Amino acid sequence: MGLSPRQEKIAEMVRTLGPITGEQIAERLNVTRAALRPDLAILVMSGMVDARPKVGYFYTGKTASNLLTEQVSRLKVQDVQSVPVVVTAGTSAYDAVVTMFLEDVGSVFVVESGGILAGVVSRKDVLKVAMGGSDLHKLPVKVLMTPMPKIIVTSPDESVLTAAKKIIDNEVDSLPVVSLSSQGKTYEVIGRLTKTNIARLFVELGEGRGGELL
Amino acid sequence: MGLSPRQEKIAEMVRTLGPITGEQIAERLNVTRAALRPDLAILVMSGMVDARPKVGYFYTGKTASNLLTEQVSRLKVQDVQSVPVVVTAGTSAYDAVVTMFLEDVGSVFVVESGGILAGVVSRKDVLKVAMGGSDLHKLPVKVLMTPMPKIIVTSPDESVLTAAKKIIDNEVDSLPVVSLSSQGKTYEVIGRLTKTNIARLFVELGEGRGGELL
Repeated sequence: MGLSPRQEKIAEMVRTLGPITGEQIAERLNVTRAALRPDLAILVMSGMVDARPKVGYFYTGKTASNLLTEQVSRLKVQDVQSVPVVVTAGTSAYDAVVTMFLEDVGSVFVVESGGILAGVVSRKDVLKVAMGGSDLHKLPVKVLMTPMPKIIVTSPDESVLTAAKKIIDNEVDSLPVVSLSSQGKTYEVIGRLTKTNIARLFVELGEGRGGELL
Repeated sequence: MGLSPRQEKIAEMVRTLGPITGEQIAERLNVTRAALRPDLAILVMSGMVDARPKVGYFYTGKTASNLLTEQVSRLKVQDVQSVPVVVTAGTSAYDAVVTMFLEDVGSVFVVESGGILAGVVSRKDVLKVAMGGSDLHKLPVKVLMTPMPKIIVTSPDESVLTAAKKIIDNEVDSLPVVSLSSQGKTYEVIGRLTKTNIARLFVELGEGRGGELL
């Protein structure tokens, strides 16, 4: 958001001299306290400056892009996640790929009975063994999956930002969205968070269609 | 940004009755014009409401998330793009996959002499023919690539938002960043924009590290 030159001046004053009262700011600028009121209101509204009774105005260190940070950090994984696509551990690599094509996903989650997460298989994993000349029909998917506990996971109430950071930092295309099983030692797969979800969210926020989410 | 109940009320009034003068708003709220000034200033600053001399206040249709829109729409593809990974049209599918693994990319661009874009090959394309039992060594990449002019492209000065929308709408993982060749009829490949670039940008903006970009 664009500040007027006087608002910029006041923000700078609060930053260097704060806490400072409205009267002191008015004096320094040689204007009345009343004339300052709209400017101060805007600075407080923008989040850059805050006011404390009997103390005065002080600088919060926030800028316009922090506003964005605060909005984005309110979004949870469950607000943007997709349904998970799963296969069982005994499925052949071939059938896992067929599932990938049918569902048009880049990876499938391998589960044990009860939907317990056992592994993740990506197009890249299958391509690697196909290149090696293995017969995908004879190869069970568990041989090529990334197994637990190596899998990076997320949960429905984690912030999308934290989950997106996991995707980037670990160089994966998707994360299983999990909840702790009743035994508390295994994960039940309940969703899927992908780079596509993040890119779609980016577009929605950028187009101002994130209103329902934010 | 949070509006006070009175500011919400004024915004709603401007939306339904605008253009409306400050005096008219003051009358309806039964307050003085001066008392309204800070609220109106905030609404104008927020971009939700605009003022035109001799006309009054009118609603712009913008919301807090539009602020984000405006910031994001300033970002260009060239600010976030990656280097392109290319192979020539005569390369075997096998060697194209080797390049994908070495460079750790999900798709490679197929070029003719002079870096002219001829096609795109993804992991998914290769996996499809590998599943069909084709010998990847004997298959030139041009047989399985998505050829021009079917390829969706972007340019360095297109907004990241528009490019991200192309990725989502066309369900692709990446876009070649191109410039028109000197003849003006073909595209020269100069970069690569992927879902990873978008997800990384999302994280940077969300962490408030987009300052240099915005």
